[in-house]
Amino acid sequence: MKQVQLSHGGGGVEMNKLINQLFFRYLGNEILLRNEDAAVLECSGPIAMTTDSFTVSPLFFEGGNIGKLAIAGTVNDLAMMGAEPQYLTSSFIIEEGFSLDDLEVIVKSMADELKVSGAKIVCGDTKVVPKGSADGVYINTTGVGHIRQRGISSHNVAEGDTLLVSRDVGCHGACVLTARESLKLASPIASDCATLWPTVKALLDQGIKIHSLRDATRGGIAAVFNEWCQTSEVQITLDEQQIPVNDSVRGICELFGFEPYDLANEGTFILAVPHQDAERALDVLQQFNPQAAIVGTACRSEQHRVVLNSPWGSRRYLDFPAGELLPRIC
Amino acid sequence: MKQVQLSHGGGGVEMNKLINQLFFRYLGNEILLRNEDAAVLECSGPIAMTTDSFTVSPLFFEGGNIGKLAIAGTVNDLAMMGAEPQYLTSSFIIEEGFSLDDLEVIVKSMADELKVSGAKIVCGDTKVVPKGSADGVYINTTGVGHIRQRGISSHNVAEGDTLLVSRDVGCHGACVLTARESLKLASPIASDCATLWPTVKALLDQGIKIHSLRDATRGGIAAVFNEWCQTSEVQITLDEQQIPVNDSVRGICELFGFEPYDLANEGTFILAVPHQDAERALDVLQQFNPQAAIVGTACRSEQHRVVLNSPWGSRRYLDFPAGELLPRIC
Repeated sequence: MKQVQLSHGGGGVEMNKLINQLFFRYLGNEILLRNEDAAVLECSGPIAMTTDSFTVSPLFFEGGNIGKLAIAGTVNDLAMMGAEPQYLTSSFIIEEGFSLDDLEVIVKSMADELKVSGAKIVCGDTKVVPKGSADGVYINTTGVGHIRQRGISSHNVAEGDTLLVSRDVGCHGACVLTARESLKLASPIASDCATLWPTVKALLDQGIKIHSLRDATRGGIAAVFNEWCQTSEVQITLDEQQIPVNDSVRGICELFGFEPYDLANEGTFILAVPHQDAERALDVLQQFNPQAAIVGTACRSEQHRVVLNSPWGSRRYLDFPAGELLPRIC
Repeated sequence: MKQVQLSHGGGGVEMNKLINQLFFRYLGNEILLRNEDAAVLECSGPIAMTTDSFTVSPLFFEGGNIGKLAIAGTVNDLAMMGAEPQYLTSSFIIEEGFSLDDLEVIVKSMADELKVSGAKIVCGDTKVVPKGSADGVYINTTGVGHIRQRGISSHNVAEGDTLLVSRDVGCHGACVLTARESLKLASPIASDCATLWPTVKALLDQGIKIHSLRDATRGGIAAVFNEWCQTSEVQITLDEQQIPVNDSVRGICELFGFEPYDLANEGTFILAVPHQDAERALDVLQQFNPQAAIVGTACRSEQHRVVLNSPWGSRRYLDFPAGELLPRIC
């Protein structure tokens, strides 16, 4: 089995070969292939810019791998600002001895996932570190894209807004957790890892007035709703019964003592829209996933906290997740 | 001594605290502090975009540290395309147990180095990996900036162009090498690590017609000149006596069997200008560093290689560096 050597990151002959035979082969486009110190892009108007380093463990999981995740994750952060994902950079930190075959699978997944949004890799970087100085491979992707609709912001959740979730929550976290614990489930939990731009584009095309949009990655929907309470100075009330959680995820949570709302997602977002747009937004979301649901509302209050109404009529606060949670989830 | 914990990367309370008390404190600006999924930037016209992951070992070296390097390196890649460095992202992969004091020194160095070019950090990401899954800290910086002068490209070295180098070569590589070998030198070799935008800006302001510009990082000036031969389809002839190398670097090279031309630089660039602009370009470069020099010329040839003329009248090819060189130089 061929392996990555330190010389593949040295800036000489071997690195050029790796770049040409692997990265350019799968990710090549007119801009990337110019191979300059920096890519030249034509932009006008407002753009969004975002960065993420991916360190997920294991590198391959049910429903994806670190390559798919690195594209979907950064593209999604752009989409969450109402921006069309256009140009991405990718930067690899590879551990000496890593399988070149596995690296090829990862890079191919990146190419496949890019097709979903139409974004392009325009420049990259490759570093190789000695054995024991990384865990396989880490990927940074940074992206820019033209903002299609201005004013979408975590500061803009308004009094009376309806809150929706795009599908059932917690799958990515539960998937990684079961992979790490080597749990054998009758039906394995697949990560929700996916590019969300087509869904967001459909919402924008339908003229839905989106106030806030956020993919619920690390810290899950609990983190995002709590952040919105603080940044938009509102109270959020959720109807627990309406939040979609699949049975396998619920089972894993009971087993390990997690809240499904704290578990990471990688292709699930929440949005805040004016009450009058809520049903139309739900229609659009359900065309992409029938599990999409209206889960709550925002109201003015002195208390900027998330209140969860249980099916049995009780109420409790849903707080920011704290403690170690699950490291290396993304 | 306080240390980074896994929870600092978990997306919950502890991560928010680290971001607020460290990253926002030193790097904060109006865009970054909005703390959205993606930063919103106003751009028009052509922009340059570049990415780099920094894995240098040791993290602290004579003349800089990984933080200074991460800013200078990415800013320089933009400057090399004639672009004014404007907006940067920074993404940290931190090993569990890393000293929070050291992290603060690194982040403060980033803030200091940003002032040289005026670029801003507009968004970031923090991941913490378990002990043994990284070596201290790795930093990715990705940047964009408005292109001040179009047409600067490694494809544009022309017949008759004069080639210049902005200062003596090989210091960063020699500095890292001595640090790793724990060599005690009478006068330690300092890295050339520096932000090059002020020098490039001065060249542009003087109306110098720059054809090609490249900082000679991994693979040193040998890699860049060889790349230019291939991309611009020229032969490059260098006068070895004119290439500035300081005595300490020369000594280290003799000791370890390296070529100074293969050693990495982090604040040294080469440029190709039309013959008639060469003296003016040299004047500008020497205002920033008296060691700047004219080192050679480009000519048309079937042979796209670099020829080195020695002071004794002999000629040899200077090839692309090959083999392991020095890993984790940047």
